[in-house]
Amino acid sequence: MGSKRDDILETTCQLLEIQGYHATGLNQIIAQSGAPKGSLYYYFPDGKEELTAEAIHRAGRTLSQRIGNGLAQHHEAAGAVSDFVQRIAQAVESSGFQGGGPLTTVALETATSSERINLACREAYRQLQQAFEEKLAASGFPPQRAAQLATFITAAIEGAIILSRTQHSGDPLRLVADELERLLAAESAA
Amino acid sequence: MGSKRDDILETTCQLLEIQGYHATGLNQIIAQSGAPKGSLYYYFPDGKEELTAEAIHRAGRTLSQRIGNGLAQHHEAAGAVSDFVQRIAQAVESSGFQGGGPLTTVALETATSSERINLACREAYRQLQQAFEEKLAASGFPPQRAAQLATFITAAIEGAIILSRTQHSGDPLRLVADELERLLAAESAA
Repeated sequence: MGSKRDDILETTCQLLEIQGYHATGLNQIIAQSGAPKGSLYYYFPDGKEELTAEAIHRAGRTLSQRIGNGLAQHHEAAGAVSDFVQRIAQAVESSGFQGGGPLTTVALETATSSERINLACREAYRQLQQAFEEKLAASGFPPQRAAQLATFITAAIEGAIILSRTQHSGDPLRLVADELERLLAAESAA
Repeated sequence: MGSKRDDILETTCQLLEIQGYHATGLNQIIAQSGAPKGSLYYYFPDGKEELTAEAIHRAGRTLSQRIGNGLAQHHEAAGAVSDFVQRIAQAVESSGFQGGGPLTTVALETATSSERINLACREAYRQLQQAFEEKLAASGFPPQRAAQLATFITAAIEGAIILSRTQHSGDPLRLVADELERLLAAESAA
């Protein structure tokens, strides 16, 4: 029962990631997910805006869990963050530079044009930042400093995804991985 | 003669900044620029893709000049970069969170769907990074380190624009301004 709904959301996430919000049409979601039109409107009666907001909520949960799990593989925050960003570089490369999460493009496209999607994007970014913040706090950064660094890390990664997708190269992400590692290591040694 | 072309490009830049590539239509550009349809096709015979690539080229030149001029107001790179990012925060706020340059959204939307626009975006990002790199080199950073830091600064600013637009707050940009200042000051003192 829930799985048809999940298929629709999964397909929506993939299309949003590659194309963004405006270029993604309901008919394409229907065609690629294999769900009948009726079931799309059954699960998402408000149509594309509701479906996108739900897909972003789902992406926020998935990504923050992935960050939490990724970071848990290292004891120290510096190596954990660096390793995590290196893995994003690999993922963006192996997606043919179409990947890097649906959040970035959709957040920009809808920042002032859809309150519903904007709120979903804010919540998703809050979850991502919180995942970094918890790791930093757990490895000894004071709470306020952990929060500041989490925002800085999130910004640097988001920007590096844009540069890597644009340049068709994982290098900007790898460079940001190195810079963040250097910065966090210096600050935790201080 | 050139001014009608400039009007069209200026209007295109504004619409790309607010809406992105896919949501911006030629008819809207015609209506807002006041240029007749015939003159749009006279100047840009290949239509929307050519027009967007030219608008991005123009934005890259304008932004890199603005970065160069902004950075020139401080002797030291740390204060120069921080001040510049503080000004972006103000600009994004006073645009009602619709601003922050046309590059980010268009770069993501077209990274793998239009070679012509993608090449324009790459060149524009190259110009922005070069403006930071020159300032860093001029204030004493070794050439290779200046290039690395320029990429990192560009990524952090791009990501912070996304967070600020999404959260409808200049705070993420101001935080990134402070972090970059701290980082550059520490490294130039070392």
